[in-house]
Amino acid sequence: MKKTSALLADGREIIYFDESDAAARTLIDGRDLPPFRLQPTVRYDAVLDEWVGLADFRQDRTYLPPEDQCPLCPSSDSRLTEIPASSYDVVVFENRFPSFAQGTDGAVLPEAPREQFFRQRAAVGRCEVVCFTADHDSSFSALSASRVRTVIEAWVDRTRTLSALPNVADVFCFENRGKEIGITLSHPHGQIYAYPFPAPRTRQMLDAARAYQHRTRRSLFADVLAAEQRSGDRIVARGESWTAFVPFAARWPLEVHLYPHDHVPDLPALGDAERTELSSIYLDVLRRMEAVFDDTLPYIAAWHQAPVRIDRDLARLHLQIFSTRRGPGKLKYLAGSESAMGAFVNDISPETAARLLREARP
Amino acid sequence: MKKTSALLADGREIIYFDESDAAARTLIDGRDLPPFRLQPTVRYDAVLDEWVGLADFRQDRTYLPPEDQCPLCPSSDSRLTEIPASSYDVVVFENRFPSFAQGTDGAVLPEAPREQFFRQRAAVGRCEVVCFTADHDSSFSALSASRVRTVIEAWVDRTRTLSALPNVADVFCFENRGKEIGITLSHPHGQIYAYPFPAPRTRQMLDAARAYQHRTRRSLFADVLAAEQRSGDRIVARGESWTAFVPFAARWPLEVHLYPHDHVPDLPALGDAERTELSSIYLDVLRRMEAVFDDTLPYIAAWHQAPVRIDRDLARLHLQIFSTRRGPGKLKYLAGSESAMGAFVNDISPETAARLLREARP
Repeated sequence: MKKTSALLADGREIIYFDESDAAARTLIDGRDLPPFRLQPTVRYDAVLDEWVGLADFRQDRTYLPPEDQCPLCPSSDSRLTEIPASSYDVVVFENRFPSFAQGTDGAVLPEAPREQFFRQRAAVGRCEVVCFTADHDSSFSALSASRVRTVIEAWVDRTRTLSALPNVADVFCFENRGKEIGITLSHPHGQIYAYPFPAPRTRQMLDAARAYQHRTRRSLFADVLAAEQRSGDRIVARGESWTAFVPFAARWPLEVHLYPHDHVPDLPALGDAERTELSSIYLDVLRRMEAVFDDTLPYIAAWHQAPVRIDRDLARLHLQIFSTRRGPGKLKYLAGSESAMGAFVNDISPETAARLLREARP
Repeated sequence: MKKTSALLADGREIIYFDESDAAARTLIDGRDLPPFRLQPTVRYDAVLDEWVGLADFRQDRTYLPPEDQCPLCPSSDSRLTEIPASSYDVVVFENRFPSFAQGTDGAVLPEAPREQFFRQRAAVGRCEVVCFTADHDSSFSALSASRVRTVIEAWVDRTRTLSALPNVADVFCFENRGKEIGITLSHPHGQIYAYPFPAPRTRQMLDAARAYQHRTRRSLFADVLAAEQRSGDRIVARGESWTAFVPFAARWPLEVHLYPHDHVPDLPALGDAERTELSSIYLDVLRRMEAVFDDTLPYIAAWHQAPVRIDRDLARLHLQIFSTRRGPGKLKYLAGSESAMGAFVNDISPETAARLLREARP
């Protein structure tokens, strides 16, 4: 695999991950773009003890353009896209409408607490787009295992690089898929958010893991995985290095967690064999999920990694894939109980979901 | 106001709140229904230290029926609905597809911990539907202030009654509005969930309030309200007993919090004058929200009350109304960052939202 970095016309970085070591790239973005200067902010919510992002310029972001105006397709002689190349394997670039960014000069703006409840600061971090294939009409589940392996190498590289940036606390690789999830571009792609704080779910999992470790001297994630393996009721797929299961208290109609058998903190810590098996088991799980209902599958695939600077031993890398699809033509919505109170109610039993996934014939 | 209770054909309770003290009700449900026996469960999620509801029978619930089959309209000679009456003012009844229920004999099923990670128990609690008007085509914002006052009296009555049930820990009155929020019935109605646990957001707010009180000996909610009143930047409406503001770290494009000036724990603790002003300020805020964008307003209106048995002095009653509408034809979706990591990014600045709401001419 060959990695090549360059800058887009407005100064944003673009990185090609080519499967052939012989790939040669001409790295000129011919567009006339003003310098990239957007600076989102984060605000502290004292009532919930959480940081919230504010990026009001995102209101103007590209929204479901027609295919012949897709900014993630390769450039052609007649049209320049975000990717100044005639084709690519996997390519990563800085998001033009970022929720977190390094700022034009990389400086950290000072926090300005005019009032203790009104704390805000620059949303220092980074948001990247990961294009999985140059084929506009493809999808992650249609990729070859070797292409998924290239995507994994891109995630590994970006996790390592973004973790080294000042102020980055949590690196989140994910894919939103389907217009029902709110995607604004249909070209097969994922995203990476490098947060300046440990994300709320990360904190919540680590609080639970810390309390469990304090009580038992054991790893919560290892013991949950072992319990699911012993039970078998909710197992979807097993490999040498990975096990996929529907969690006992799943929140979503279709939800699968994929755990590595070894206690690794993040994607860069995975060994070669683990990465290879991950490529095929990820595809197997996703294809099963897509085959359960006779309808499109909107989904979110989310990599939970250890935060960058704390709790490296406490956290365990795992993938969470979940869908709002609860049947053909039917979606689960987050209404009052979920959105306002955080109390989820699932319409499909996890054992039923696991059986449907095991029986699915992709 | 006159309150009249009865039982539906399957044993569920129905309660009429009539504005005229002279209202006379014939309390016979002529339908032939099997006894109500559904028992949802809750499961403990050890990885997030939260309870999750499981109600798989809800898959079959009524989904957007045509108007002439609406189960929340009054009954007629030719059609029997959930409300066996020819008209009503405000009526409350037990949900036919509940996420939490008392069970057929009211007994609490024993917890069955076959395995420490697989704890589940009966979802003992109650779910009720609150119909705001017999007029199918109306909406909360179109109600008169006196009708809203009747709705408030119904919420007060139900909060008091449900709080007295064994095992109920948190009573949540709310309205989901709009098909984009996932409502399954368009007739103007809200719901009440009586949870067997303090809801995750309740816990999170109280954890923050407890830490703040420990540090400062002061009330977090009182001090946040005072800071918003001093600043004025995000105030939407002020009354004698209530102030409405967009929170400094709002998560949603349009989000308004309505706080009482007195530190009351829940709706039953409101005095007469507070209830009367609430009727008009609630309508004022909601009508402003509906007037901001030239489009329908899907929204969730959520009453945060003190939990039933703990932290009664720490919590303060407040109303949170929020919409996913971020512009005409545009919705905010909860995608990867929000749904998988709990990290919200808002596309509209709270000060802009407050200005739009202040300038709105309903």
